[in-house]
Amino acid sequence: MINKANDPSLKSWIEVPNNSDFPIQNIPFGIGKTDHHKPRVCSRIGDQVIDLKTLFVLGYLKNLPFDAEDFDTSSLNNLMRHGKKATSDLRNRLSKLFSMGFNDLKDNEHHVAQVLMPIDQVQMCLPIQVGDYTDFYSSRDHATNVGTMFRDPDNALLPNWLWIPVGYHGRASSIIPSGIPINRPKGQQKPNEESDPIFGPCKLLDFELEMAFITFDGKPLGENITTAEAKNYIFGMCIMNDWSARDIQKWEYVPLGPFLAKSFASSISPWIVTLDALEPYAIDGPQQEPAVMDYLRYEGKHHYDIHLEVAIQPEQAEETIVCQSNYKHMYWNMAQQLAHHTINGCNIRCGDMMASGTISGPTPESFGSMLEISWKGTKPVQMKDGSERKFILDHDTVIMRGHCEKNGVRIGFGEVSTKVLPSK
Amino acid sequence: MINKANDPSLKSWIEVPNNSDFPIQNIPFGIGKTDHHKPRVCSRIGDQVIDLKTLFVLGYLKNLPFDAEDFDTSSLNNLMRHGKKATSDLRNRLSKLFSMGFNDLKDNEHHVAQVLMPIDQVQMCLPIQVGDYTDFYSSRDHATNVGTMFRDPDNALLPNWLWIPVGYHGRASSIIPSGIPINRPKGQQKPNEESDPIFGPCKLLDFELEMAFITFDGKPLGENITTAEAKNYIFGMCIMNDWSARDIQKWEYVPLGPFLAKSFASSISPWIVTLDALEPYAIDGPQQEPAVMDYLRYEGKHHYDIHLEVAIQPEQAEETIVCQSNYKHMYWNMAQQLAHHTINGCNIRCGDMMASGTISGPTPESFGSMLEISWKGTKPVQMKDGSERKFILDHDTVIMRGHCEKNGVRIGFGEVSTKVLPSK
Repeated sequence: MINKANDPSLKSWIEVPNNSDFPIQNIPFGIGKTDHHKPRVCSRIGDQVIDLKTLFVLGYLKNLPFDAEDFDTSSLNNLMRHGKKATSDLRNRLSKLFSMGFNDLKDNEHHVAQVLMPIDQVQMCLPIQVGDYTDFYSSRDHATNVGTMFRDPDNALLPNWLWIPVGYHGRASSIIPSGIPINRPKGQQKPNEESDPIFGPCKLLDFELEMAFITFDGKPLGENITTAEAKNYIFGMCIMNDWSARDIQKWEYVPLGPFLAKSFASSISPWIVTLDALEPYAIDGPQQEPAVMDYLRYEGKHHYDIHLEVAIQPEQAEETIVCQSNYKHMYWNMAQQLAHHTINGCNIRCGDMMASGTISGPTPESFGSMLEISWKGTKPVQMKDGSERKFILDHDTVIMRGHCEKNGVRIGFGEVSTKVLPSK
Repeated sequence: MINKANDPSLKSWIEVPNNSDFPIQNIPFGIGKTDHHKPRVCSRIGDQVIDLKTLFVLGYLKNLPFDAEDFDTSSLNNLMRHGKKATSDLRNRLSKLFSMGFNDLKDNEHHVAQVLMPIDQVQMCLPIQVGDYTDFYSSRDHATNVGTMFRDPDNALLPNWLWIPVGYHGRASSIIPSGIPINRPKGQQKPNEESDPIFGPCKLLDFELEMAFITFDGKPLGENITTAEAKNYIFGMCIMNDWSARDIQKWEYVPLGPFLAKSFASSISPWIVTLDALEPYAIDGPQQEPAVMDYLRYEGKHHYDIHLEVAIQPEQAEETIVCQSNYKHMYWNMAQQLAHHTINGCNIRCGDMMASGTISGPTPESFGSMLEISWKGTKPVQMKDGSERKFILDHDTVIMRGHCEKNGVRIGFGEVSTKVLPSK
């Protein structure tokens, strides 16, 4: 089935700057507010934010199964509760309304002025009221790097890793949007040279380059979602910086997994790019050997070619790109993650968020965390301002960006940018 | 400060059967529905459920900071959003309205008939819309038993256990109330004699006897809650059966902790007993050695003397009590758990649930899971119907009960009862 909204030849009557992540082929969803407007559902083309609440009130979203409350709200959850077909139809409607040659809205200057807001006048908010947040660990290169550093280089992958899309439950309350600064967390650490643990600000603060997907309502408790069904339960994706306190993690994580080392914050990019928009960039995944169990087998393309990069910007200095990776490096794909998550009967709900785990590629330039980039601090990174980084310092801003490109069309996620403030 | 609602001499004009968990000194909160009534906020005295929505409509809850929407709703979250003082005041009002000698409501037979519903006509629902669910691991005897079985009897506790109230994030979507049956989960297991993992229904299905507390809204991200402040952020408690698939857990849990072994279901008792009501049963905790870090020190009584028991009822047979434990066996208390959870700046929200971990005492009769009771299946339990149990079988019902008793007053939680159905 060809999705007309993905047609590479489509142009919008809204101007789209070169190299924008937001041509008419994207049509992402988010929550925006301004000095004059409460939070509401928005989309974006070029540098114009589209106020969907106003668009609905003006009657441009008729004959779709939505109510005013689905747009006049501070999260996308109401919208998502209508499911895959409804949200796909909404994206198609927006594509049509804003495409060159379709003049219903374009010719009504008064309406256009009400509906469009320049991006620099809009503050983007957390787009999703996250129910449960799950973090997977699905990059083979990342798992191999961590295993090599902390366990045995000859047996870097744990025995279960090639059988299970390993994951764990994360903290939903501390998921924040791009632009919100965080404070360096405090906690217990156990330096090797000390016999007892110590308490204080984290010394090994790290980012993790991840992507996350957001779910529609799933099936009742006790039923599972197959890999073939998975795409119908996924709304879209964003970039996530899954902040990590390496020293806190090392002391706390045995035997029940990471807890306070992660729960102080996870930052996400504010625009949810739909799985529909990403479809042209779907690719085949890696050969999986040993062969996966039946419930993890899949057909079709479930991996995606998404360029990713991470920059560190010291205070009042130029940023340095420290990582260039790609979502295609994932060993386990979203369909497998969702099938695994529900195979025990666990129910998923509208607004659940599932992250990939750190996305590292095979080369050092593509490692997705400072832990790997600086190889536990043994290989400091040279910054453009002359300084060095082993881990993240106070007043650094970490910026992650991602986009796809094919057939002359580039769609992207914008960025997630987070400044680190000292411990309180 | 003496709480009049806890006065042992108080009697209600509602009849309270002997050994009821619900004298007027309890006044718990829950969500009930009937064939004629949608879910609403309720309380309970004896075997009568009190319809707080109707009580509000009839004007008996005036001069309290609540709206109709706080009672005409399917969770206690709206109520809890008003915070500690408001919910304490509400309990005090209910105590007064239903106490012997106070006749405002009692003398209006028409009103009484509208407000009271016999418990056997009410279906109790999930009381809380749970935001984040955290599971601690705070019973020293349980951690010691597990360490002895799976690691080293001479070093049963891991190095961090006496320093940290170890915990991990759990799955909120699959928390269900008493009475909802569960299906035996399926998943990957790795029998010792096999070189590769296998797939199928869990063979080692277990309960975990736990208690959980529910929070009010906390502080903003980046701030912490001290042990001295903790009680102001805790609404109340319930009993939790944190279902566990031991064979799935063993294969999946390294290095990120339990995931599918737990996320298929956690069952809770439907009445939230307030921390106010539990105050008379507060006791001193154990000596903690080594001395805990400053942020985990506490003053006052934060442990509670709560008798707990677990019964297994085979289909159409008499139940057998397999565990008699007590919440007083906890090493880490709720104030310490909350202080630890937030010391890194993690924010808590209204409706978060934090469970104790398995509550085992020092003797085999008080072990809180079949793993410990049957010592990994080596010591089967004799059942009254002549059968044996190493773990939980299909068609078994697991029932957990809990109550406090002092000065002739018994208040309790009722029960959480869950039947296990075969795998789907």
